[in-house]
Amino acid sequence: MSDPVTNNPDVRMRGFTSRSLVEDVLAWVDEHAQRLPAESVELAKASGRMLAEDIIATHDVPPFDRASMDGYALQGNATDGAGDYNPLEFRLLGESMPGNAFAGKLETGTAIRIMTGAPVPLGADAVVPAEYATESNGVVRITTSVSPGKHIGRIGEDVQAGSVILNAGRRLRPQDLGVLASVGVPRVTVTQRPAVRVIITGDELVLPGDPLGADCIFESNSFVLRSLIERDGGEVESMRRVRDDRKSIAEAMRDAGADVVLVSGGSSVGAEDHAPSILDDEGDLAIHGVAMRPSSPVGMGRIGETMVFLLPGNPVSCLCAYDFFAGRAIRLRGGRASDWPYPRLTATVERKIVSAIGRVDYCRVLLNDGRVVPLSTSGASILTSTTRADGFVIVSASSEGYAVGATVEVFLYDSSSA
Amino acid sequence: MSDPVTNNPDVRMRGFTSRSLVEDVLAWVDEHAQRLPAESVELAKASGRMLAEDIIATHDVPPFDRASMDGYALQGNATDGAGDYNPLEFRLLGESMPGNAFAGKLETGTAIRIMTGAPVPLGADAVVPAEYATESNGVVRITTSVSPGKHIGRIGEDVQAGSVILNAGRRLRPQDLGVLASVGVPRVTVTQRPAVRVIITGDELVLPGDPLGADCIFESNSFVLRSLIERDGGEVESMRRVRDDRKSIAEAMRDAGADVVLVSGGSSVGAEDHAPSILDDEGDLAIHGVAMRPSSPVGMGRIGETMVFLLPGNPVSCLCAYDFFAGRAIRLRGGRASDWPYPRLTATVERKIVSAIGRVDYCRVLLNDGRVVPLSTSGASILTSTTRADGFVIVSASSEGYAVGATVEVFLYDSSSA
Repeated sequence: MSDPVTNNPDVRMRGFTSRSLVEDVLAWVDEHAQRLPAESVELAKASGRMLAEDIIATHDVPPFDRASMDGYALQGNATDGAGDYNPLEFRLLGESMPGNAFAGKLETGTAIRIMTGAPVPLGADAVVPAEYATESNGVVRITTSVSPGKHIGRIGEDVQAGSVILNAGRRLRPQDLGVLASVGVPRVTVTQRPAVRVIITGDELVLPGDPLGADCIFESNSFVLRSLIERDGGEVESMRRVRDDRKSIAEAMRDAGADVVLVSGGSSVGAEDHAPSILDDEGDLAIHGVAMRPSSPVGMGRIGETMVFLLPGNPVSCLCAYDFFAGRAIRLRGGRASDWPYPRLTATVERKIVSAIGRVDYCRVLLNDGRVVPLSTSGASILTSTTRADGFVIVSASSEGYAVGATVEVFLYDSSSA
Repeated sequence: MSDPVTNNPDVRMRGFTSRSLVEDVLAWVDEHAQRLPAESVELAKASGRMLAEDIIATHDVPPFDRASMDGYALQGNATDGAGDYNPLEFRLLGESMPGNAFAGKLETGTAIRIMTGAPVPLGADAVVPAEYATESNGVVRITTSVSPGKHIGRIGEDVQAGSVILNAGRRLRPQDLGVLASVGVPRVTVTQRPAVRVIITGDELVLPGDPLGADCIFESNSFVLRSLIERDGGEVESMRRVRDDRKSIAEAMRDAGADVVLVSGGSSVGAEDHAPSILDDEGDLAIHGVAMRPSSPVGMGRIGETMVFLLPGNPVSCLCAYDFFAGRAIRLRGGRASDWPYPRLTATVERKIVSAIGRVDYCRVLLNDGRVVPLSTSGASILTSTTRADGFVIVSASSEGYAVGATVEVFLYDSSSA
């Protein structure tokens, strides 16, 4: 399993003799993408993080019986028969405010003013909402009856001390932070974010904003990769632009400090494609060449515990290879689920989707009134195919594609297309 | 329209005499949530931001004809008839590398080594992939024929200079940043993030981690609100914890610097509910009291151009009032769509959902094998109802709820429940 394909690490200018199957490569990723250790973070910064421990409440919420309406606390039974034509009077003894409870005890025929959230005093067992009461000269007149327990939140009704409120492995929602805060938790233990190094190779690459020399193009993969890494819960450890020489690439690849390393460019079989043989020298090149389109020159392996992904330089291949393999590794190491974070929908094919048996195809599609139309431009270098498309369809290696009328699952680039 | 309901600003201890309809309140939000001006940000920080201008390409991508495979550039017609049993020989003149083109011109019978992405030299019109070529002694032997144009990416095939590549109003995807980079754009003009001030009132509130005094509870709404604000593209301008007195609340409310102000607590009709009358003094309290459950004591209005939302202190009410109104305002001011960012699905009701005619209900539900079960705990103070639930169902004011077997739309708290 650790070596699904025997690789010849130096395929430069000879071509791939065989390519791994996507399913075997995914299995390799899943086997090696070990979850990182946990760390403690401030609660205010924990939204979206992956909880690494069960949380057991140390406090009841609420910590006392409290009013759940603004109004008057009293004995519910004493309101029997109260109504608009039969207002009942109670002598006001004081008030209970949030943070400032009424210290005394209520007797029959008395009431206190009480605010939502304030402790219910001894002797009271119900709250009459303010709408059904009028106050004058130390007396409150009640025009509705309330049964005992009405409009009172019991101690522990939200959270009971000692109960498990959230389980390890959960991605923290906004409201989870609220529940954690409500039991007094100031910090929380979450899975570390994977530290991801991005190494950009390609002597022809110029940073956007710099003058574009002859034979050069603007570098774009770093921008795509940074956003994808952040989407998947990784943290960019460093973004390194290196010369296309073995020494620079090898140094950038082997430096300590990254959980996952992405190398953009130089992954294929050209004379200048150093990355695969460097990875084989520095660690273990487990996979090189995958039966898919685009991204077939993708490679991957490990240097110690660090997972290294060799992504093709062509922008669509880079995006696709990231999404299939590197993003999955980052999500898994960070404690997330392996699945794609794209929204999905099921739709009908309006124009034929063509693929070939034996390879997985990443087919960019438009949704035309909810029906699926493949983009005719499918080149690995046409990045605008991914900006014009609404999403993509995956054609498995066992399929030649989809006929008109077939039902397919579409992965949407944006949730707003859903 | 600007004042759908005539409000009595001081309803303290008198109760609401009438409540606004949710639809009217949404219309008020939409009318006043003006989109903020644009700002320029570095491309690397633009992921997820809302594009504020159309982007017109100033460069062709690619800026020259380039190889789309590693191999050998030559004249396609000269390969006619080449095959495994009929290799054709070409004299090697040199090579074209990315960033370092071959300077000469090819004649018939010659070839150059070429890498993916490198400029195709004058005289060549096709590339033979490396797999179909063997090189020795200055000669390359070709075993396949390629027609003119094969494996060449034409100048401008991805992006043509002068074309609109992305339209204003788009939420920038990872790959959009790639396309922007590929045309040399270093910065991009996006809608400003709304600056959101959060004012937490409630003398009974203690920060998680601090000792919990008698009659006190831990403060939780700030944690929920911060994550929701960030989810909706806002930026927390400041998080202010103030005493429950008019002066402190008024100062925090009126300070310049926020596009949206959220006040948590003190929004209702209790004696200590100062927020509505303060907002009416400082600006315009447009709405107070909405026909919904929970969150009916929500209020809102404006101080100058700043939108102010008065959110009930009860945690579920606070979350719900934020989601219905404040979050929508933040999304709209930041240039986003008004809709909820929750994934949706359609499902069948397994256990009756009860509501009342005349109010909108926010009903937390579980998905039991894909069927909808309402949580029995629906109190506005039971925040764990939103952590145990998979999502929620909205029951409109014209409905009494849903019977078993009815089809409803469920909004999911997590995309992973989809």
